[in-house]
Amino acid sequence: MNTILESLHSRKSVRVFIDREISPKEKQQILTAATQAPTAGNQQMYTILDITDRRLKEILAETCDHQPFIAKAKMVLIFCADYQKWYDAFSFFGCSPRKPAAGEFLLAVQDAAIAAQNAVTAAESLGIGSCYIGDIMEHYEKHRELLNLPPYVFPAIMVVFGYPTQQQADRQKPKRAPLDFIVQENRYHRADETTLKACLNTATGTLSFEEWIQRFCKRKYHSDFSNEMSRSIEEALKNFR
Amino acid sequence: MNTILESLHSRKSVRVFIDREISPKEKQQILTAATQAPTAGNQQMYTILDITDRRLKEILAETCDHQPFIAKAKMVLIFCADYQKWYDAFSFFGCSPRKPAAGEFLLAVQDAAIAAQNAVTAAESLGIGSCYIGDIMEHYEKHRELLNLPPYVFPAIMVVFGYPTQQQADRQKPKRAPLDFIVQENRYHRADETTLKACLNTATGTLSFEEWIQRFCKRKYHSDFSNEMSRSIEEALKNFR
Repeated sequence: MNTILESLHSRKSVRVFIDREISPKEKQQILTAATQAPTAGNQQMYTILDITDRRLKEILAETCDHQPFIAKAKMVLIFCADYQKWYDAFSFFGCSPRKPAAGEFLLAVQDAAIAAQNAVTAAESLGIGSCYIGDIMEHYEKHRELLNLPPYVFPAIMVVFGYPTQQQADRQKPKRAPLDFIVQENRYHRADETTLKACLNTATGTLSFEEWIQRFCKRKYHSDFSNEMSRSIEEALKNFR
Repeated sequence: MNTILESLHSRKSVRVFIDREISPKEKQQILTAATQAPTAGNQQMYTILDITDRRLKEILAETCDHQPFIAKAKMVLIFCADYQKWYDAFSFFGCSPRKPAAGEFLLAVQDAAIAAQNAVTAAESLGIGSCYIGDIMEHYEKHRELLNLPPYVFPAIMVVFGYPTQQQADRQKPKRAPLDFIVQENRYHRADETTLKACLNTATGTLSFEEWIQRFCKRKYHSDFSNEMSRSIEEALKNFR
């Protein structure tokens, strides 16, 4: 395995950080790597908000499902799907643009995710840990006001960064499902009960699979934050219709 | 710059491939790197379809905006956003799940994009070029039938891979917008006309900015494929409502 493959393998989420700053040079390297990511038609349909304001971090730690470690991160980046800049440019320069729609929304979300993953990989190469925070897609109205977002900008992804504590560095990376469950040839084969039980069984600990998945479903899927996320996204999507 | 940062910087799209196979070991390394990517709650809400069937590749080359190079690629991967497996598991194991909604859809699309970018980075480290094909989000009904997709599986991203020709290897990577245009501190600042003209001006060639953006808008944004993409995504989204 080469250095790059090794780094992609060993990267895991880091949620506890030591008190060491990320230097301006390191930040610049991470952000530059993000913007060098593939992007549809070279459009870079994202804007990265670098959240440096302490009060803003504290608010986000609350609105993003009450996770205090967000406020303690040394760098907090929000990757916004951004079609506003293209829509505005088309408007200014005589293109009479139609309104952005679902295609622009989703291409921009993908552009943002791809750029974010480059930032994560770049940080890892510098020894800097990271954690994705999906909860930034909740509370769209609050976040729109807080971050001053115009209609065609959607806060799709948040990633927090910092140097890991020893405990975090030593922590075992959660096991992934078997490759032949995730990869299928040519056409989709819907998994049966036995396969699902065997393949989704990655972290049951002392619980039976049934107990584990019932708790998991309750905690993740039938949760307030999960319902809020879908509501919030539907609200944002109204701008793209 | 370390090896990883260098690789993220130099990676560019490759659309013409030499006649050299990607070995089973290389394919395995690329796919494994993809599945080691960050994923919300370790759920791996994606399935990777490895398209090896020649006829299927030829059809996809047509349905994805008539791009023959897709059929000539040595490896064609479709990263499907997949909440079906979790929904099915929740159903089998007594969780009485609600129906998946916009939150699951978007988290799964992001999971798929993040995994895809790991595959792209892994391939690059092996000297294998790649190109994202956003057009896989068009013609949802056709692709659903072609790939045998159940309701909660959406073909979000396609990436084609192969060893680059010398011409492709030598090709200049398109310039990205200035970093201080893409990165903003704390709150979003909407760019004015002058800034947009200066910062979106990356590939006008001999045209004036106005001519270039008008042609670009017509070719990309006011195009049939763009309208089709939004229609197709709205159709897929109906399953998540």
